[in-house]
Amino acid sequence: MLVLHDFLDSGNGYKVRLTLAHLGIPYRLVEQDILTGATRTAGFLKKNPNGRIPTLELEDGTCLAESNAITYYLARDTRLWPQDKLEQAQTLQWMFFEQYSHEPYIAVLRAWKHVGFGVTPERLARVPELEKRGYAALDVMESHLKGRRCFVGERFGLADIALYAYTHVAEEGGFELARYPAIRGWLAGVAAQPGHVPITFRPPVGKTGPAAAE
Amino acid sequence: MLVLHDFLDSGNGYKVRLTLAHLGIPYRLVEQDILTGATRTAGFLKKNPNGRIPTLELEDGTCLAESNAITYYLARDTRLWPQDKLEQAQTLQWMFFEQYSHEPYIAVLRAWKHVGFGVTPERLARVPELEKRGYAALDVMESHLKGRRCFVGERFGLADIALYAYTHVAEEGGFELARYPAIRGWLAGVAAQPGHVPITFRPPVGKTGPAAAE
Repeated sequence: MLVLHDFLDSGNGYKVRLTLAHLGIPYRLVEQDILTGATRTAGFLKKNPNGRIPTLELEDGTCLAESNAITYYLARDTRLWPQDKLEQAQTLQWMFFEQYSHEPYIAVLRAWKHVGFGVTPERLARVPELEKRGYAALDVMESHLKGRRCFVGERFGLADIALYAYTHVAEEGGFELARYPAIRGWLAGVAAQPGHVPITFRPPVGKTGPAAAE
Repeated sequence: MLVLHDFLDSGNGYKVRLTLAHLGIPYRLVEQDILTGATRTAGFLKKNPNGRIPTLELEDGTCLAESNAITYYLARDTRLWPQDKLEQAQTLQWMFFEQYSHEPYIAVLRAWKHVGFGVTPERLARVPELEKRGYAALDVMESHLKGRRCFVGERFGLADIALYAYTHVAEEGGFELARYPAIRGWLAGVAAQPGHVPITFRPPVGKTGPAAAE
């Protein structure tokens, strides 16, 4: 069975848990407390030398890192990954946008303010810059989502999962979503997808398969 | 013909130019001066609302952004993208590693010190942190490359292109590569690939196809 090393508050981990739930893939969750350095131990660094969750351990022991690479591995041959080459590249475009222009601001402010990393004086000085860049990412999303139900083509897929993960909890980092009606409509649409689970979802121990997502 | 909006000093843009050269794909280069805000004009924001190069304009006017999504689009059906699903996911893992754990430190210090963005007092205060994180990325790469010729499997591909772009000019940002023999061996191997071009490569105007890479 697949083993997912993860931390429940992580939006990056949630992308993988949400993909697994949508696809009804059984797995075992091993929680790693990133607040106390669990991913920087010698044992964990053998699984992922970059010392981060989520890390997916395959049945033969091979470990795969980077949330968006893991969801690709799980979903390439499913309805969550488009067939058309341009739509595949557009999906990746939004996944890279998420990791470069969105997560370092929206997720990081949430990690400092909400998850428990804390706002040190040095971090406090960087808050205005991170807010500015986080709102710039939300502006790009709002503009793209006007008149659309999902990020790429007509079908819910990995780009939506990648961007939903930290956007739906952006207010925990201090971002105000009231001014973004298109984003709020899209968030509601993602949450209404059959098979959706919340960020705090843990697979029931001893249960596997599609039922685990219910 | 494809149109690539790019800035020659950009390693992100170089990933795309290097992929185009390896594949012998003709294109027209339109240089955008990011130092004077050329990618933040109303005209450019219609092509890429995130205001960044590289942006690839397809023959029908569709624009694709994010360097690693563009190289996927160009190379999916070629020798630069592996056939095996796990190797595809491992390629993406290294491409996301590059954008999240490598570029924001190694490319950013080079942009400040070498490309012309400048080291303001506020930036100067952040240099030690960026150096620490950049060296952490180089440590992960060194450890992975020991005994390997390329990042994924046995064949040069998109993961190598993604990581070569800013690693081969890391010293321009102040990173010392002498302590990384495996990285230096791999850099030499990438530069020795048939079809390789340097970061300053411009396609000759009026010439197209494989000859443009010579």
